[in-house]
Amino acid sequence: MNFLSYPRPLADLITALSRLPGIGPKTAGRLAFYLLQEPEAAEALAQSIRAAKEEIRQCSLCCNFTDSDPCALCQSDQRDHSLLCVVEQPRDVAALEKTGEYKGLYHVLHGTLSPMEGIGPDQLRIKELLGRLEGVKEVVMAVNPTVEGETTALYLSRLLKPMGILVTRIAHGLPVGGDLEYADEVTIARALEGRRQL
Amino acid sequence: MNFLSYPRPLADLITALSRLPGIGPKTAGRLAFYLLQEPEAAEALAQSIRAAKEEIRQCSLCCNFTDSDPCALCQSDQRDHSLLCVVEQPRDVAALEKTGEYKGLYHVLHGTLSPMEGIGPDQLRIKELLGRLEGVKEVVMAVNPTVEGETTALYLSRLLKPMGILVTRIAHGLPVGGDLEYADEVTIARALEGRRQL
Repeated sequence: MNFLSYPRPLADLITALSRLPGIGPKTAGRLAFYLLQEPEAAEALAQSIRAAKEEIRQCSLCCNFTDSDPCALCQSDQRDHSLLCVVEQPRDVAALEKTGEYKGLYHVLHGTLSPMEGIGPDQLRIKELLGRLEGVKEVVMAVNPTVEGETTALYLSRLLKPMGILVTRIAHGLPVGGDLEYADEVTIARALEGRRQL
Repeated sequence: MNFLSYPRPLADLITALSRLPGIGPKTAGRLAFYLLQEPEAAEALAQSIRAAKEEIRQCSLCCNFTDSDPCALCQSDQRDHSLLCVVEQPRDVAALEKTGEYKGLYHVLHGTLSPMEGIGPDQLRIKELLGRLEGVKEVVMAVNPTVEGETTALYLSRLLKPMGILVTRIAHGLPVGGDLEYADEVTIARALEGRRQL
């Protein structure tokens, strides 16, 4: 018998925790011991995982996570329904909402086109996007400036432009408070490219 | 209505995750979105938390986490039952077992004496320790070299010595591979104090 190994349920818990992104085996062990020592926190966590799993679904319009369908944002009459912002992930919606600057609706793709990983248009929420374009005048691409993000933006703009919809892209450039000296070349090139008259 | 806020079950999940040690609100958000996007991982995690909570208890002898009582280690006839090693936490047992050098049994205190936090002898597994001393010849204190750890070791040694039990303390000094230049003064002082003849 190997006394190095933890009792099976504890080992299983450590394994499950170490599958989370950014949680290595050491952190997983620390978290598991914490959960064993704090049964109430453990119960609350198990319960909220189950509840989130059961109650959170995707909005049938914007595909964002929601507990009501359509989501509160899609139902709001205070938002501009002729303006759609396309993002990769639900957390991007939160990031944009935090600015308080955007007044339109969102559409969450749940990923980007990536032939290398076998993710084509059918794996993304593109069909849902095409199905809600009535009355939409502008679609802002707020996908990330990665190869996959750019590819996705280009693909979508080719689909949407022939339908008479204005397709725009959020600006890339130096972050506010950023320093030219420390910016990478691609960012500086984008900042130059996107320069405006003062 | 505030669109900044997440749907309630998602917000609850983020709150529960951010209560874990070392998990801030940003990481909690990332983990929550991951769990929503990977329902199988979420289910596995919720299940293993519940299973660990239900099946793992404390060994009635050594107070370590176990799924059988007494635990496999306390039941083993390959270990020296006259030697006890006192540690603060269950994870310390794992750390000591990894060395493969220790052949005795353990006793887990589940904390250290800390009057500041209201932790007295009754909050630790000291009664359980005193109840299993029959046939024990030596108790090794492997509590951490903190003020609380030292206080606890001293307290226990004063209890145990009058019973004719040899009480020892694991050595403190420079870690193997450590450099004198970078060691703190207390460690160097301890290393000097614990010097041995070559």
